Amino acid sequence: MIAEIISIGDELLVGQVVNTNAAWMAHHLNEIGIPVKKISDIADNAEEITKALDEAFSRSDVILVTGGLGPTKDDITKHTLRDYFKTELVFHQPSYENITRLFGSRGFAISPINRKQAEVPANCTPLINYNGTAPGMWFEKDGKILVSLPGVPFEMEAIMEQYILPRLAEEDNQRVVAHKTILTQGIGESALSEMIKDWEESLPAKMKLAYLPQPGIVRLRLTAYGETKEKTLQAVENQAKTLQSLIPELIYGFGNDTMEQIIGRLLKEKNCSLSTAESCTGGYLAHLITSVPGASDYYQGSVIAYSNQVKQEFLRVSEGSLKLYGAVSEQVVKEMAGGARKRFNSDFAVSVSGIAGPDGGTPEKPVGTVWIAVASKNGITAKKFMFGEHRGRNIRRAALAALNLLRLSLLE
Amino acid sequence: MIAEIISIGDELLVGQVVNTNAAWMAHHLNEIGIPVKKISDIADNAEEITKALDEAFSRSDVILVTGGLGPTKDDITKHTLRDYFKTELVFHQPSYENITRLFGSRGFAISPINRKQAEVPANCTPLINYNGTAPGMWFEKDGKILVSLPGVPFEMEAIMEQYILPRLAEEDNQRVVAHKTILTQGIGESALSEMIKDWEESLPAKMKLAYLPQPGIVRLRLTAYGETKEKTLQAVENQAKTLQSLIPELIYGFGNDTMEQIIGRLLKEKNCSLSTAESCTGGYLAHLITSVPGASDYYQGSVIAYSNQVKQEFLRVSEGSLKLYGAVSEQVVKEMAGGARKRFNSDFAVSVSGIAGPDGGTPEKPVGTVWIAVASKNGITAKKFMFGEHRGRNIRRAALAALNLLRLSLLE
Repeated sequence: MIAEIISIGDELLVGQVVNTNAAWMAHHLNEIGIPVKKISDIADNAEEITKALDEAFSRSDVILVTGGLGPTKDDITKHTLRDYFKTELVFHQPSYENITRLFGSRGFAISPINRKQAEVPANCTPLINYNGTAPGMWFEKDGKILVSLPGVPFEMEAIMEQYILPRLAEEDNQRVVAHKTILTQGIGESALSEMIKDWEESLPAKMKLAYLPQPGIVRLRLTAYGETKEKTLQAVENQAKTLQSLIPELIYGFGNDTMEQIIGRLLKEKNCSLSTAESCTGGYLAHLITSVPGASDYYQGSVIAYSNQVKQEFLRVSEGSLKLYGAVSEQVVKEMAGGARKRFNSDFAVSVSGIAGPDGGTPEKPVGTVWIAVASKNGITAKKFMFGEHRGRNIRRAALAALNLLRLSLLE
Repeated sequence: MIAEIISIGDELLVGQVVNTNAAWMAHHLNEIGIPVKKISDIADNAEEITKALDEAFSRSDVILVTGGLGPTKDDITKHTLRDYFKTELVFHQPSYENITRLFGSRGFAISPINRKQAEVPANCTPLINYNGTAPGMWFEKDGKILVSLPGVPFEMEAIMEQYILPRLAEEDNQRVVAHKTILTQGIGESALSEMIKDWEESLPAKMKLAYLPQPGIVRLRLTAYGETKEKTLQAVENQAKTLQSLIPELIYGFGNDTMEQIIGRLLKEKNCSLSTAESCTGGYLAHLITSVPGASDYYQGSVIAYSNQVKQEFLRVSEGSLKLYGAVSEQVVKEMAGGARKRFNSDFAVSVSGIAGPDGGTPEKPVGTVWIAVASKNGITAKKFMFGEHRGRNIRRAALAALNLLRLSLLE
């Protein structure tokens, strides 16, 4: 069974919206063993939609369509599907009741255009959208499946999880795919590739390795094709284990683990608390840490010290160090970590001070210079990093490097 | 002139990577008046790539291809292009010198696989990639253009900005497109649609309106087609002005403005400083504010107070209020804002206290309950919000609502 994704929306073709839906759907289809052959982004245009549907039906078994189901005039997917299947729109009472419930709970009145959202093509099975007003629609044609879903990510995701993925998983799949993603930090793509060359070349023919570099991180995706789910999964697991024994210090996790989740697990295991003190990362480090549900179990808080005065007053950094070494220095970043650990009364504290850019660089300390320190009962260690010139990437790389230093310190 | 984008990479089809490149390219092509007809994501597979190239050449004038140029074994785009154009790879000395420079500056030695990255198909014009080792490649065929670019976003973006967009902008464009995006906050898609119905229906035939909802924000994109750039731009500008006169209180900005940039401009104009105090947003509010270059001109810093103790110690919130009203209350969020304004000695202070979820809700204060306060020399005002159940969205919506309250307070 081969799937294909069609994302409908002018906003995609003018580049106003990034298509996160396709990635989400592709990921979840692969997880249940259904490979995705193609993703297409097309305009809110009946002719383009019809052409894309014809092409997709000619080569794929399952077609997932998102977008164009909103209540406004620019959304034409539903009417195009009605014409495509040569049918008419019928009123779907349960969808209308869902709309009533949604509007009632927010204290709004239902408008005529919202009422129209409960109408669906007569040949589809409507899928109730508990998070929004546009129902999903399940069509079947010549043994093939087409599903139309709203483009709002969390509405689409809920309908996928509730109805579509379980139903597709029940279908017979012709081939088994297993994936394992290995997460590395602190080494570039080509250096890593040289280092694991022999292992990579020894992989069996039915196994494929892909390098997925991001700022500060290289993910390795190992994909295997096989006969049974169990054997194929076992095969990738074994190869991942071999790789881990080759480069243990570079691998921080697997799969969809994030560095912040791993930190959270380690802190919980050790029953330790954490605080942070940020300058150039400006709250991004705290945001990563607190994006994990339950972070309040171990995270005390942070001081975002965007000025020297704040560093002195809230973190007790000495005026002498700021004058003598400057805010971006080993001395100051250590005092920030020590000050945070003491003032927040936490077991661990991480601090970051650097020059994110685009301004503020000097010949001695160019944009991208970042000092990071970790304080614990064993003392305070600091490390200097030289990142690049781009503000957003420097913030991201500095926060990841800070989490990784903390991780290594937690593993000590 | 019609463009088409082909993104190559298994990682896109297994959903491991979101295709941000296509959105970036589509946005910049539209800006120079070149509409994008289609975006396709396909696998690292020579047959699929060849088929996609054939289809694209049959309907588009400019084809932009990204991905598959890395140094590792899974990257096959360059060899597929060599075969597609029936040519051979030749060594490109300037690209090799660029690789030498990049490795030298990082203190690494050049490996044989990196040296191979300086080889390109004989029929292309190589485009030097100053941010990475894989050069871009510009091909021409029967009056049509194909460009192959690395998949790493900032490498692709730099080559696009430096070579490709200026060159394409010089070409004759058959039709003129103008866009104007109007940004609204605090109203849902269908309520907004009802409110501006008459205006929307009065739009001329060559103008199109699209609704782009996001958590907390609805963007309206107005698109016009016309004969001359100037006239078409003027037409959308006029319509946007009319709309602004209809719903002035709901519109916070235009185009690619972000709420945080607008806040930054307002603070600079008024020569005012800002501090924040965050509980449930956990640093995300500070991150938005500091993602704007030059934020240190007006931003003092933040206290992320993830525990009551931190609220008391760093922000001087009274123990009595915490006991009597709880951390998520009008009283406490006002004390947080007042405490931050005083301790950071800033003109404005914004505070957020709420329940982001998934845990921590009670019948009286369910997940999604958020209090936000703004303190200024005119006193402290607070407002309660009821968001949804999803942690990430609650954090995002709370931070945006906080910035909007600050914006309204700055405009008073």
